[in-house]
Amino acid sequence: MPEPLQDTRRLCVHSITTRPLSFEEILSSYPAAGISAITVWRQLLEGRSPAAAGRQLREAGLEITSLCRGGFFPAATQAKRQQAIDENRRLIDEAAELGAPLVVLVCGADPSQTLAESRRQIMEGSAAVLPHASACGIKLAVEPLHPMYAGDRSAINTLAQANDLCQQLPSPWLGIAIDVYHLWWDPDLEREIQRCGQAGKLFAYHISDWKLPVEDLLNDRGLMGEGCIPLRQIRSWVEAAGFTGFIEVEIFSHRHWAKNQFEFLEEIKKAYLAHA
Amino acid sequence: MPEPLQDTRRLCVHSITTRPLSFEEILSSYPAAGISAITVWRQLLEGRSPAAAGRQLREAGLEITSLCRGGFFPAATQAKRQQAIDENRRLIDEAAELGAPLVVLVCGADPSQTLAESRRQIMEGSAAVLPHASACGIKLAVEPLHPMYAGDRSAINTLAQANDLCQQLPSPWLGIAIDVYHLWWDPDLEREIQRCGQAGKLFAYHISDWKLPVEDLLNDRGLMGEGCIPLRQIRSWVEAAGFTGFIEVEIFSHRHWAKNQFEFLEEIKKAYLAHA
Repeated sequence: MPEPLQDTRRLCVHSITTRPLSFEEILSSYPAAGISAITVWRQLLEGRSPAAAGRQLREAGLEITSLCRGGFFPAATQAKRQQAIDENRRLIDEAAELGAPLVVLVCGADPSQTLAESRRQIMEGSAAVLPHASACGIKLAVEPLHPMYAGDRSAINTLAQANDLCQQLPSPWLGIAIDVYHLWWDPDLEREIQRCGQAGKLFAYHISDWKLPVEDLLNDRGLMGEGCIPLRQIRSWVEAAGFTGFIEVEIFSHRHWAKNQFEFLEEIKKAYLAHA
Repeated sequence: MPEPLQDTRRLCVHSITTRPLSFEEILSSYPAAGISAITVWRQLLEGRSPAAAGRQLREAGLEITSLCRGGFFPAATQAKRQQAIDENRRLIDEAAELGAPLVVLVCGADPSQTLAESRRQIMEGSAAVLPHASACGIKLAVEPLHPMYAGDRSAINTLAQANDLCQQLPSPWLGIAIDVYHLWWDPDLEREIQRCGQAGKLFAYHISDWKLPVEDLLNDRGLMGEGCIPLRQIRSWVEAAGFTGFIEVEIFSHRHWAKNQFEFLEEIKKAYLAHA
C-alpha cells in the first residue's frame, strides 16, 4: 500500500463535484481550499469565452487538467453520428482555447442497437476525431463506464475494452481515464491497469466512493471514505503503472450538492488526505 | 438467431415475479396461464411443509426448477461465515424436501473487506456445502450478479469468474445460473457461455429485460421486450452451448407487482413468445 498523500499538490476537483458553485465562486474557493487543479465541465463555460476562462483559472492558481466531456458516438442514423463527430471537434477546439490538454470521452450507447454495433461506432467516431485532436494538440481519454450504464451511456464498460480500443486505434493522442467508481469491481483491474500503463495510455485518474445503498444510478456517489472502494490499493496499482498525474475528485451527488459547498470543499480535502 | 419460441413448454416463472400472489393463487393461476414450471422463492414456503408444497405444485402440473436462494457466504467473522454455511445446508434440505433439483446461490459480498477476500470466502463456503448438496442429490448454481451489486450482494460479477470458480471446485453438483439481466453487457458473454456449456456447467437460464431508465437498483427490471437486452441472441448462444432446459422469467419490479397479477401472467406469456 502506498503512504497516505501528504499534501494537496496532486488534488484536482471536477467542477461538477461542486455543481452549485458559480465560476467566480470556484475561482476564489478552490485555491483557498488548497485545491491545485480543476477539470472543467463544459456547462461551467456557458456564456463565457473559453480562452478568458482558462486565463482566469490559471491566474487564480489552478492548473486545468481536462475538459469534460465528449464522446456519445453511437446513434442509429449516419446523420446523428456525424453530428456527434462535429460536436466532438468543437469540444476539442474549446479545450484548446481553454488550455486544457485533455478531453474526456464518455463513449455512448444506443439502446436501439446491439452493444457490438455501438462499439463499432465508438471506434469509427474516435478515429474520425483523432486527426483534429492531434492537430490541436489535445489528448482524448476514453473513460470506461460502469456496466450499469451500458444501456444508454457507454458500451465501453471495462478497462480491458478501453485498452483494446487503444490498441486498435494506435495514436499518442488517444488514451484512457480510469475512474474507480466505474471499475473498482473488476477482477481484472490490477492487470489491466498494468497493461494500460505499459502502453502509455494512463491519461487520467478519477476518484470517489461506492456508498451503500446506491439510491440513484447517476447522482449518488460517495465522498472518499464513505464507501467500499479500496482507494489506496487502486492508487498503488495506478502508481505502479507509472501514473504521477493529478488525482481527480469527481462526485455526482444530490446529497453533497445540497450542502454548503465551501464546507464540502474542506471535506473533500480531508477525505482526500485520509483515504485517497 | 433462433426461431421464436412456439409454445410455453419451456416457460418457467419465479414465484417472486408475481410476489403479491399467495401459494394458493399460484397453484391455480400459473398452470391456467400455460406456465410449465416454477422456481420457488423461499418466502413462498413460509409456514408450510416443503414436502407438501412440492406435492401440491406438481399435482397442479408445475415442474419445480429450483429453489431461490442460498449463498451469501462472505462475512467479516468466522462465526457469521459458519452461520451462512449452516443456513445453506438447511436450504439444501429444504430443496430436497420440496423436490427442487437445484439451489441458486447469490454469492454475497461484505463491504467491510476487499472483493478478493469475499471471493476467497465464497470459494470456501461453496466447498463447505458441496458435500451436503451431493449427499442430498441437489445441484448448486452460482449466479454471477451485475457489477452494480458488487458492494454488498455478490463479489462474483461475471460469467468468467463463475466459470473459474467451477473450475477451481470441480464437482458435478456445482454449476452456474446465467441471468441476462446481470450479464448482458459483458463483451465476453458469448465466449464464456460457450465455455460454461462445454464444461457442463450451464444449469439454469434466467430472463427479464433492462429497461431505461433504471429507476431502482433492485426492483425495476423490465418484462421481456421492454428493454435493450438482445434476448434472442443470448438464447441462441445458450442453446448453441447445449442448454435445453427451462427459460425462467425472473422479474423484480415494483411497477409490475402493482398490477393485477393474473393479467401480468398473460403479459409474461405473450412477452415470452414474442421476445425470449
